[in-house]
Amino acid sequence: MSHSNDPITEQLASAALARFGETFNVPQGLLNASELLRMLSHSSHRRWTEQPIGADLLKLLFACALSAPSKSDLQQADIIQVTDREKIKAIASLIPDMPWINDAPVFLVFCGNNRRIRQIGEWRGKPFVNEHLDHFMNAAVDAGLVLAQFIRAAEASGLGTVPISAVRNHSRETSDLLGLPEAVFPIAGLCVGYPVEGGRIIPRLPLGTTVHIDRFDEAAVRTQIDEYDQRRHALFPVRKQRYSSRYPDVDFNGWSEDKARHYSMPERDNFGEYIRAQKFSLK
Amino acid sequence: MSHSNDPITEQLASAALARFGETFNVPQGLLNASELLRMLSHSSHRRWTEQPIGADLLKLLFACALSAPSKSDLQQADIIQVTDREKIKAIASLIPDMPWINDAPVFLVFCGNNRRIRQIGEWRGKPFVNEHLDHFMNAAVDAGLVLAQFIRAAEASGLGTVPISAVRNHSRETSDLLGLPEAVFPIAGLCVGYPVEGGRIIPRLPLGTTVHIDRFDEAAVRTQIDEYDQRRHALFPVRKQRYSSRYPDVDFNGWSEDKARHYSMPERDNFGEYIRAQKFSLK
Repeated sequence: MSHSNDPITEQLASAALARFGETFNVPQGLLNASELLRMLSHSSHRRWTEQPIGADLLKLLFACALSAPSKSDLQQADIIQVTDREKIKAIASLIPDMPWINDAPVFLVFCGNNRRIRQIGEWRGKPFVNEHLDHFMNAAVDAGLVLAQFIRAAEASGLGTVPISAVRNHSRETSDLLGLPEAVFPIAGLCVGYPVEGGRIIPRLPLGTTVHIDRFDEAAVRTQIDEYDQRRHALFPVRKQRYSSRYPDVDFNGWSEDKARHYSMPERDNFGEYIRAQKFSLK
Repeated sequence: MSHSNDPITEQLASAALARFGETFNVPQGLLNASELLRMLSHSSHRRWTEQPIGADLLKLLFACALSAPSKSDLQQADIIQVTDREKIKAIASLIPDMPWINDAPVFLVFCGNNRRIRQIGEWRGKPFVNEHLDHFMNAAVDAGLVLAQFIRAAEASGLGTVPISAVRNHSRETSDLLGLPEAVFPIAGLCVGYPVEGGRIIPRLPLGTTVHIDRFDEAAVRTQIDEYDQRRHALFPVRKQRYSSRYPDVDFNGWSEDKARHYSMPERDNFGEYIRAQKFSLK
């Protein structure tokens, strides 16, 4: 345990404790400790000031994001910047419980793109024989890497963001609004702006649940989740019992109860149909 | 165009030019500009010094990574730290063209995990009705976000990494070695260590190809890719014509020629079979 006076080391230990509920022996003298602290303290933001984001800054953020690693250097991620207020309103109206989509100074949609590699095969006179699940997933993950790196660049620049996977609640409509052609698909939207207030460190599952040594180990997972429910509830209780007309009230409405209720109702069960219509076989 | 003497602004403009082949008007006085520069300069590393990575630092990096955004707070990403040299050798032997897997001081495998939410439904007495493609993709993308944030934290700490999606070349064997149960699947490995040398900025497609305003636009894509092939070739030529016994040599072996050849042969076309065996319907 550190008894140092190094303030950033103390802050890292404190943020990690808040997030994961356990003690960290944070090494002294870390490089770029404030950057690690910003990651540990990551929070979504849904309220922004009216300060616009300069076009030059935004372009630089795109450049940072699109410098993320890319599977086999295929560069299968694209970003749609939605500037047309009518389009933003149309997307927001499809997702009425997320009014912050309409409020955000900048709204982006991150897409997987399997299209260019198919086109390149045609142009170079080579068959394209990789129309299968792995290839679809590569593009989805590449787009995720670009999204994550955009968020890091934005937060470094003093901005706050919230990802909107709910753009896939109505994939066909979103896709048509953005003119996404075959073999291109949205993975998530992203609201971006200068945040009104600081973020909160929402507790996460302990590293004992999500980090495994040599072999996946779930021997303690149920106990760990019970403890996590309690730890989280003490700080950020889930006040509303989800789908309360469908299920009897429970005495303890923890994270796991809320998530079990959430996934007891279908969500985006038509996304597969949309993706197949975008000409993915997923075989 | 900036004529300032602010050195970091000049470095950002220079890195962005090297990456995207175009001029950037980088704003003066950016917050955390060195962090943006590190993203813009991102490079994979495949050679490391023998310096080990301290256990406390590694744990902190896991904490940073697992603080990444998570779809609906479901926390569907897990990390397997492979410390058993026999297991690392076994994985490396499945991927003989990537000997750096065996050389890396630390080797990790990032996984999507749809398992916990299914278990939680059982424990809380709620049906789980979201066994479809969208839910699979959520876990894959969440794991991608965690992977990207791990890479950012590692680079901030002076480490170098290279992602290994090729762990999916033999998904079943990798999965068995790591004891991955049903509804858990690998998205990529990651080699981590202190790099022997600095990285190189490999050019990427221009932002005109990958960033779209309001609507997906590929009007200029073929010209852009031709130009990109030339720009990239001038600095980092692809020396070997891939699958040369299968295709006649071409005069200009650019990025797009190489990628067209790469994807003219099947790669991981059995991943879908593996994922279905892991109890995903992908419907």
